[in-house]
Amino acid sequence: MAITVVGSVAYDSIETPAGRRDRCLGGAATYFSLAASFFTDVRVIAVVGEDFGPEQEAVFKARKIDTRGIERAAGKSFFWEGSYLDNLNEAKTHNTELNVFASFNPKVPEAYRDSEFLFLANIDPVLQRRVREQMPDVRLVAGDTMNYWIKDHKPALLEMLKGLDVLLINDTEARMLAANNNLVQAARGVLAMGPHTLIVKHGEYGATAFFSHRSFPNNSEKPNHAFRAPALPLEEVVDPTGAGDSFAGGFFGYLASQRELTPATFRRAMFYGGVMGSYACERFGTERLQQLTRKEIDERFIVFRELTHLD
Amino acid sequence: MAITVVGSVAYDSIETPAGRRDRCLGGAATYFSLAASFFTDVRVIAVVGEDFGPEQEAVFKARKIDTRGIERAAGKSFFWEGSYLDNLNEAKTHNTELNVFASFNPKVPEAYRDSEFLFLANIDPVLQRRVREQMPDVRLVAGDTMNYWIKDHKPALLEMLKGLDVLLINDTEARMLAANNNLVQAARGVLAMGPHTLIVKHGEYGATAFFSHRSFPNNSEKPNHAFRAPALPLEEVVDPTGAGDSFAGGFFGYLASQRELTPATFRRAMFYGGVMGSYACERFGTERLQQLTRKEIDERFIVFRELTHLD
Repeated sequence: MAITVVGSVAYDSIETPAGRRDRCLGGAATYFSLAASFFTDVRVIAVVGEDFGPEQEAVFKARKIDTRGIERAAGKSFFWEGSYLDNLNEAKTHNTELNVFASFNPKVPEAYRDSEFLFLANIDPVLQRRVREQMPDVRLVAGDTMNYWIKDHKPALLEMLKGLDVLLINDTEARMLAANNNLVQAARGVLAMGPHTLIVKHGEYGATAFFSHRSFPNNSEKPNHAFRAPALPLEEVVDPTGAGDSFAGGFFGYLASQRELTPATFRRAMFYGGVMGSYACERFGTERLQQLTRKEIDERFIVFRELTHLD
Repeated sequence: MAITVVGSVAYDSIETPAGRRDRCLGGAATYFSLAASFFTDVRVIAVVGEDFGPEQEAVFKARKIDTRGIERAAGKSFFWEGSYLDNLNEAKTHNTELNVFASFNPKVPEAYRDSEFLFLANIDPVLQRRVREQMPDVRLVAGDTMNYWIKDHKPALLEMLKGLDVLLINDTEARMLAANNNLVQAARGVLAMGPHTLIVKHGEYGATAFFSHRSFPNNSEKPNHAFRAPALPLEEVVDPTGAGDSFAGGFFGYLASQRELTPATFRRAMFYGGVMGSYACERFGTERLQQLTRKEIDERFIVFRELTHLD
């Protein structure tokens, strides 16, 4: 089933211990789309500037991603500059230019309206909500956010959360959003804000899914209170940019490819998320996701399963 | 098979967000012994002062731990004072008094010499090595260390590591010891220092075992390069003191209770380590381990397995 995703399509300048790239294609919606495209049809809603050309468009087209919802505006595309020189787990932002994103008013194209899955990547929660309202009948809505929105735009964020089924955020964001340092208690707090399921991403340590009684209302299988998926210890992390968005793409893409949404489907989706996140780190920007094959994904899924498998 | 453990038996004053305890029984050898005692016979080597009385002795006796190797010396027992007010994952040390430990010269009692398993808990690597030399014929030797020894006593530590089969340390220590920020590369560096297997503890995120070609020389089963065991997301962490030592006790105790040491045994041992570490955090000091039952351990083992299990 098709996924519609709204989020940033951007240019990134990145410095890591492995080197530097200037103005490479990035943005949450880009990473998410590429990762999810290995599992199902993906349709993007974003805005880009005049600097977005056929070369960038081709990256989406090569993965058969629908780009009719990528609006062209006068000016420059969203730009982010950051480095991971001291700590590969946390980006240091040097510069953020919203550019065409500053006046973005996302419109869901008619051709996207039958999407059964909707992903609201990390952008202004007001925009996330506008997209959500244009697609009231989707089967599953997931979304992401970040510390900036939690800290300075909490009322708008709380409104947006009411329309989400699944929220994917990292440890720090979960604790900040619920104002509670204990992860289990923080998760319970977040689940009371709207989402029936919370996925907390732990970077190099994997991710934890926290389910509620609303996660599987039509399923007789009793969900676990929590489920943990590992991350693969990587020999070399070239660039962690987009790893979280790639996790989300693998996770949500796998869910959208399944007929039924059961606890077992969610557990496997967590592992596919980990697989896509780990591949994303192996090269700069989207380079690795562009070259990836489904065979490699399935091979690494087995490695992930072996990584924690007993007996 | 019996385990001999050498390490600290101490008094701890601990402050956490859940409260405060003054001068409760602690020390790496204490936590390790209590945790391991649920799986096999345990014999302790340590030194205590005149403040160690029948009440403390009874804690070991209740778990049938052999205390003939606990030497009594004039003066006070090792004392540590710390808090976890800002961060439950890292203790802030306020005071350390070596006391009787300053002149400790561990001697292995005759009755301990047939132990097939030896654990060198975190003390001066010179002392760890002296105990190791008195027990040349053990089947498996594991040990722990900490940042202080890595930073200021590296030559003695490197000598000690040559006599270890399994080293258990945390993330920061592994990266510091190998002077490499990438965990996989750091693990390879540590494995070149002596141990054939490295267990890296990630606190609330679990632990990773890194195996080498020397881990299972007589076993046809090909070991995984790495194995990850989860930690249980805990609703309330009352006191993380001793969680790492309890992990080691569960891990090594389970190994000592098995006839064969195979990759599968090591994987299960990692899970039992996680179980014991999680219980240790539920009350102050050793309170929870003292009240624990084997039934509770096996129940939580199942919870841990479900936590990451696919299909």
